[in-house]
Amino acid sequence: MPRPDVPDLVERARRGEARAVARLISLVESGADSDAGAADLRAVAAALAPHAGRAHVVGLTGPPGVGKSTSTSVLVGALRARGRRVGVLAVDPSSPFSGGALLGDRVRMGEHATDDGVFIRSMATRGHLGGLAWATPQALRVLDAAGCDVVLVETVGVGQSEIEVVALADTTVVLLAPGMGDGVQAAKAGILEIADVFVVNKADRDGAAQTVRDLRHMMSLDGGDGGCGWQRPVVPTVAARGEGVDELVAALDAHREWMDAGGERTRRRLARAEAEIQAITLERVRARIGDRSGLPRLAERVVAGELDPYAAADELAHSVTGR
Amino acid sequence: MPRPDVPDLVERARRGEARAVARLISLVESGADSDAGAADLRAVAAALAPHAGRAHVVGLTGPPGVGKSTSTSVLVGALRARGRRVGVLAVDPSSPFSGGALLGDRVRMGEHATDDGVFIRSMATRGHLGGLAWATPQALRVLDAAGCDVVLVETVGVGQSEIEVVALADTTVVLLAPGMGDGVQAAKAGILEIADVFVVNKADRDGAAQTVRDLRHMMSLDGGDGGCGWQRPVVPTVAARGEGVDELVAALDAHREWMDAGGERTRRRLARAEAEIQAITLERVRARIGDRSGLPRLAERVVAGELDPYAAADELAHSVTGR
Repeated sequence: MPRPDVPDLVERARRGEARAVARLISLVESGADSDAGAADLRAVAAALAPHAGRAHVVGLTGPPGVGKSTSTSVLVGALRARGRRVGVLAVDPSSPFSGGALLGDRVRMGEHATDDGVFIRSMATRGHLGGLAWATPQALRVLDAAGCDVVLVETVGVGQSEIEVVALADTTVVLLAPGMGDGVQAAKAGILEIADVFVVNKADRDGAAQTVRDLRHMMSLDGGDGGCGWQRPVVPTVAARGEGVDELVAALDAHREWMDAGGERTRRRLARAEAEIQAITLERVRARIGDRSGLPRLAERVVAGELDPYAAADELAHSVTGR
Repeated sequence: MPRPDVPDLVERARRGEARAVARLISLVESGADSDAGAADLRAVAAALAPHAGRAHVVGLTGPPGVGKSTSTSVLVGALRARGRRVGVLAVDPSSPFSGGALLGDRVRMGEHATDDGVFIRSMATRGHLGGLAWATPQALRVLDAAGCDVVLVETVGVGQSEIEVVALADTTVVLLAPGMGDGVQAAKAGILEIADVFVVNKADRDGAAQTVRDLRHMMSLDGGDGGCGWQRPVVPTVAARGEGVDELVAALDAHREWMDAGGERTRRRLARAEAEIQAITLERVRARIGDRSGLPRLAERVVAGELDPYAAADELAHSVTGR
């Protein structure tokens, strides 16, 4: 296969060509997944750098069954109704789907499939480091460079991926639903701390008002702002009927405006860039250790009792870094 | 507090002084837990290096409720009856106990508490990298240097800690019990692959024979040896009554002899030393990045679109490693 003409693809993606967007994301995915693709990944990253950083990146997370796919879909509709271009990245560590099939409510998302103001992409989480670390930030930059005003990142599954989405998003939406033992479960998983906006979906069900009250009470206990001056709103929705979605869009816009006014968005992006650069650098050091260091000989000396592992690490660091 | 006289502590530990053993393990724990203790940790590691590597390290793992504490306790008794010195390290990521209290069946372990041929220690898993990575290998070396013929490492909890115990043990024992949906659950958790010896505990219960048959059938399917020439035994036990414990000791001895005969124990120890040295080295690089690199300025340029994160990682690697 000939090497792709990356600058040309980026130009076409910037003009909104869906096929170029899809091709770039595929390059990013395979680049994060294999050494062979690493050069393409680097070329894409270099070509995108000047054209990204404009989109509002919104992460959506929450326990399974809470209605993330449905909420994402109706949110796309509401944003499109306001004339905004929207990208959707559904990140699923376990999905067999990739390359365009959205998880969950595919029929519902199907109504957006022919809309050229929407890019929808699902990704399996891949890469040498696992998790979202490698491919997803670059895939976000592709959608950003393609002119999306908002990019929605929907995580599937729980635990680590919920935390990682925060590292990627400007605004993190945590979805809960009544009757799921939300308070305790969410607190346990640490997802309450990461929320900028709470959604209580399925708000027509028993216990919804209580869940909203519980959350607002919790907000009041910690001053409501996690100590950073933002009053985290609790938005009741019935996503399946589109109820509360306008309020959710308003909450997202308000958070973006608050971030821009106080410099918070830049602070978050700097922290994100630091984490990304550091992860890439450490992976490179790890690869260098694997390639050509004296590690096996050092291990022999440790096993023989001639050296302790800390002294061995001194020697290894010296051989790898020259210091 | 005055700096500890580490060489003196190691000499006293080698003579079997329980207090010196306990003090060294405490130094290792606090050294892995704080920068202030790091020098002590290094001093302990250096002083231990010539005196470790003799003990047979046996990891015990399995689902909660399977009887790990009881099995560990009766195994201690059986080994002591054979005149062997025994160390026990109970590793619990969530335990509030540390510094000598064994988890679970403390009364039962109490019968060994006055035996000066037994060292028992529980550890919370700590350290900058989390998990077992830092303190536990050095704590093992303390018990090894103190003259233990066998060191039992009992993990509490499931998941990652089960996998990590393998990285520490010469011989890994996976305990199952009838009626826990073992086959499926254990296969899911990946703990079948890591076993050198299977124990079906509570073998007086309904379904025990079936669990033993299922495991033996599984062994027969993969040739029984995980492809490395060792026929993995399945040992039924009723640990609470001491039944099957002699057979378990025999299985552990047989595995040790097999490892020594074919060089497998050395191979495992080399792999373990490589992983440990590499982890320490990477942690050191990470600390160096944090301390004094140009990371914040690089992140600014990435956010401004002047640089992509891969090019930034190139610059960072250069500034950290001089290459």
